[in-house]
Amino acid sequence: MRSLHDILIGPPLPTQRLGEERLSSFKALAALSPDALASIAYANQEIFLGLVVAGAAGLAYSWPIALAIAGLLAVVALSYTQVIHAYPGGGGSYTVARENLGTNAGLVAAAGLSLSYVLNVAVSMTAGVAAAASAFPVLWPYRVVLALALLAAITLANLRGLRESGGLMAGPVYLFIGTYLVMIGVGLARALAEGPATFAEAVPPPAEALTTFIVLRTFAAGCTALTGIESISNGVPIFRSPETRHASQTMAAMAALMAVLFLGTVGLTQRLGVVAGPEETILSALARRVVGEGAPYLAVQGVTLLVLVVAANTSFVGFPRVASVVARDGFLPRQLTLLGERLVFTNGILLLSGLAGVLIVAFGGDTHLLIPLFAVGAFLAFTLSQAGMVIHWVREKGQGWLAKSLANGLGMLATGVALVIIGVSRLLDGAWIVVLLIPLLVVFFRQVHRHYDAIRAQLSLRHGLPPTLKPLHRPRIVLPISGMHRGVVEALRYALSISDKVTAVYIELEPGQAERVRREWDEWGFDQDVELVVVPSPYRRIVGPFLEFLDAHDQAHNDGQLATVLLPEFVPARWWHSLLHNQTAWLIKLALLYRRRRFGRTRAIIDVPLYLRR
Amino acid sequence: MRSLHDILIGPPLPTQRLGEERLSSFKALAALSPDALASIAYANQEIFLGLVVAGAAGLAYSWPIALAIAGLLAVVALSYTQVIHAYPGGGGSYTVARENLGTNAGLVAAAGLSLSYVLNVAVSMTAGVAAAASAFPVLWPYRVVLALALLAAITLANLRGLRESGGLMAGPVYLFIGTYLVMIGVGLARALAEGPATFAEAVPPPAEALTTFIVLRTFAAGCTALTGIESISNGVPIFRSPETRHASQTMAAMAALMAVLFLGTVGLTQRLGVVAGPEETILSALARRVVGEGAPYLAVQGVTLLVLVVAANTSFVGFPRVASVVARDGFLPRQLTLLGERLVFTNGILLLSGLAGVLIVAFGGDTHLLIPLFAVGAFLAFTLSQAGMVIHWVREKGQGWLAKSLANGLGMLATGVALVIIGVSRLLDGAWIVVLLIPLLVVFFRQVHRHYDAIRAQLSLRHGLPPTLKPLHRPRIVLPISGMHRGVVEALRYALSISDKVTAVYIELEPGQAERVRREWDEWGFDQDVELVVVPSPYRRIVGPFLEFLDAHDQAHNDGQLATVLLPEFVPARWWHSLLHNQTAWLIKLALLYRRRRFGRTRAIIDVPLYLRR
Repeated sequence: MRSLHDILIGPPLPTQRLGEERLSSFKALAALSPDALASIAYANQEIFLGLVVAGAAGLAYSWPIALAIAGLLAVVALSYTQVIHAYPGGGGSYTVARENLGTNAGLVAAAGLSLSYVLNVAVSMTAGVAAAASAFPVLWPYRVVLALALLAAITLANLRGLRESGGLMAGPVYLFIGTYLVMIGVGLARALAEGPATFAEAVPPPAEALTTFIVLRTFAAGCTALTGIESISNGVPIFRSPETRHASQTMAAMAALMAVLFLGTVGLTQRLGVVAGPEETILSALARRVVGEGAPYLAVQGVTLLVLVVAANTSFVGFPRVASVVARDGFLPRQLTLLGERLVFTNGILLLSGLAGVLIVAFGGDTHLLIPLFAVGAFLAFTLSQAGMVIHWVREKGQGWLAKSLANGLGMLATGVALVIIGVSRLLDGAWIVVLLIPLLVVFFRQVHRHYDAIRAQLSLRHGLPPTLKPLHRPRIVLPISGMHRGVVEALRYALSISDKVTAVYIELEPGQAERVRREWDEWGFDQDVELVVVPSPYRRIVGPFLEFLDAHDQAHNDGQLATVLLPEFVPARWWHSLLHNQTAWLIKLALLYRRRRFGRTRAIIDVPLYLRR
Repeated sequence: MRSLHDILIGPPLPTQRLGEERLSSFKALAALSPDALASIAYANQEIFLGLVVAGAAGLAYSWPIALAIAGLLAVVALSYTQVIHAYPGGGGSYTVARENLGTNAGLVAAAGLSLSYVLNVAVSMTAGVAAAASAFPVLWPYRVVLALALLAAITLANLRGLRESGGLMAGPVYLFIGTYLVMIGVGLARALAEGPATFAEAVPPPAEALTTFIVLRTFAAGCTALTGIESISNGVPIFRSPETRHASQTMAAMAALMAVLFLGTVGLTQRLGVVAGPEETILSALARRVVGEGAPYLAVQGVTLLVLVVAANTSFVGFPRVASVVARDGFLPRQLTLLGERLVFTNGILLLSGLAGVLIVAFGGDTHLLIPLFAVGAFLAFTLSQAGMVIHWVREKGQGWLAKSLANGLGMLATGVALVIIGVSRLLDGAWIVVLLIPLLVVFFRQVHRHYDAIRAQLSLRHGLPPTLKPLHRPRIVLPISGMHRGVVEALRYALSISDKVTAVYIELEPGQAERVRREWDEWGFDQDVELVVVPSPYRRIVGPFLEFLDAHDQAHNDGQLATVLLPEFVPARWWHSLLHNQTAWLIKLALLYRRRRFGRTRAIIDVPLYLRR
């Protein structure tokens, strides 16, 4: 077991190596930006699908919409650069909103952000598979399985640890950037040589009239291009020192790349009059148009798939980190704060992977169905984070606070307007799921926090009487037996070593069975040391009659304590052997733990296992 | 919980009522025969589908094939009547084959029989839904869900108990018999009035030439008409006294009814030249032809659905009974011998239901795909049982032994030949699954038996030294703590009540944490009574370092015993709260039970739970 684990995950790393696991800007860009960069794959597609229903007149709006989104990108990138400087500790929207707007705003941001991380994984996997299936239509029926296989691979990479996965990602990300820049360059040259094209020939006839609603809905869908942009501000602590400077440089580089790739591809699509069929993505159609059918085309599709796969990686870096911050504040299960053997948040990685897997299966691996759920959470977090920053600057009143708060105010306004457009125009397409989930998540966070508060109060030694180790009375011991065997003998010997008040209980399921047991009991002379009580069970139940006996026994002795239950158990040699036994000991334990609550006093349970050799 | 359980399943019944739960012949026919009777629904269908590929020339073979199957039916019914007399204790093929041919033959029969019981449930459910969907094509897409819902209903009825389910079944069974007898009567009158028809007009053109192989394969598929015929001989003990006479009378009645219904429907189909389309069953087409489109047609389809649903009931009576007999002999898990609160083999019922559910889902609710798996198991059990009976008579040499052994020999020969035809002609259609599963099941039975033998030998007090209750030394107690809280205080008080050798262990995951714990420990004065040991864990593991400490502690003390581990645990107020905690106690328990095997000595584990109120 251990060795298989080591091959897949790697040997454990000591805590002291935590400080060393930092990334250079070059690797950090690869680790944190693929989500944002790869968004162009589905954002392009959504803009095309949103406008093509209105025919050529609709598609003419591609470029203006792309420009609007690029403007939004600039504003959001500027805002987040300010977050990096104000919060070098990372944590992003959740921290910013919580510190400046209060706990509830922070939790709403955390809920929105978490959902958008999960959706990013699901969308990236399915869009990646769609890119591959555009080149090889034979893959189309296997979309769900392929997406899940990719998910498993990326999960494993992340369980190995941050530095390794940062390294793994660099290749595909830079390959993607390079390939697309070349394609855009070639496309531009071709467009200049050919002069402007019109869509008219290839576009299917309009199915609907062009309305403002269609344009706004398409803008909303295109806004998914911005998802993931906050990753760098969340991840400041993983940069090499000086973290702030490295992070803000990386942020600027990423925003510039996003703008070039997004505007370049949308612009070329419109300029060259590219249209895609039903089983092809628009980027695939563009690549076919620019570089032809051969190896260059396959290269473009290959790097698109690759970068989408690693785009999911952004979530694997970001989600476990955010979850651990929220969990440290007591709003999510503690387990999410635990650093695993490889110095990563193992539980957060597994949770993310599980949730994304559920989404992929539930939506049949279809990107287009997932998109409406995607942007709401992200833009909610954006808006709250910017609003928090405005308050931050106003409160601090540091150097240039007015300009800074105005910059973030602009960001808040822009993302807020986009959020309303997205929420309203995509509500019925699936955004309602997220609109419903976010308050539910906030309630869940609150419940978790209340539980931890309650636990702390109940366990604290500071409240009530000071703790004392005054020993209890020597416990009475009650020992249920299923017959006469070596396990019972071992259990009795153990019981007699800690108490002289030991009672054995035999639950008789079929009339007459007890006689044989008592005969053997007396025959071996056990009756000298331990009383054997027989409880008949006419309804063939074991647990109920045993618990009733236990209550009666406690009442009869009335010594202010509950009897200890000692369970003779045998541990089979192979795990599947357990299926061949009745597991009565386990049922009794469960019943004692969960049904005997009303007593409020402690009932200890002792297991005396007998190990079988075969 | 209890009250919902009582409404669904009914209140528990005492063991002494076991003798009372017997059935009259009238009810026993309803409880045990639906499988055999309802087989005509799918046997007819399979004969039609098997022959229609060869067009009208093929369909002309319906009647000869039906006659051959009816002859086989007579032989098998006669054979099983002899089984009833020879084995009034029930148990059927397994018992007969085991006693006369040896354990392996018995196990093969048990495997075959079990599989055919499971398949009967799956086939009856899907064929019943097909009958309903022939009348209401809108149901066609929901076949799997509908079949599973019916399965759940029949499972519940059987969990309530034998008498009630016998009563539930009588209505549909007798309604089915009456309705079909009327339909056959009407059809005969119509056929005589109209004179013979020919298929030629309606039959699709032949897709294949008529070959011997097609005829044999159709015969093999039609043999599913006989499945379930052994139920009465397995169920002799559920008849009212005198069991043997009631059972053999019921057997004769059932065989006669089967022959009339089967020959009547196949004969009418051929005589009237009935042909079915792709989304209709042949029985539905026959009913439409005989009684028209209105209410009578719907009544026929309704009772067909009903009887198929209750046909599954035969398996629910038979399978748990056979499984309990096999389990009592130690070849299946003991749990299958337990009578539940309602005096039925609850575990056997649930196992059957689960396996049938898996088959329904795996085969997409399609009867035609399940059929090739069906007959192999049943005919294997038939043949072995008849062979066993031949040996039985020869060994016993009682009155008329020669005639009796000749009768069973004929049965063996007939079912053996049918078995070979079925196995060979349907092998590639799916029979291979059963051919593969049967030996695997036999190996499994053997393994289970070996395990129980090994357990018995290891637990027995008769081997080795005589048992003694000489107490062990007072145990050393090791108590892992996660911090300073009330749960730890309770645990320490308990530990001190049974031993004065108590050691607390703190596993330090992050450097510096232990200092605070030790300060509080000393502050409360715990250091007076209990030593606190700190174990640093640079790899942030808890279980591993704790187990290493435990080994070292045992070695240092070297008193011939292993230290007892005492786990302070808190039990949260609501079950879902458990998800918010690390479950370290549980992991330690698991590790102690399953990884510490090599010591061979007993290590007791004590749980001291602290119940939280909220």
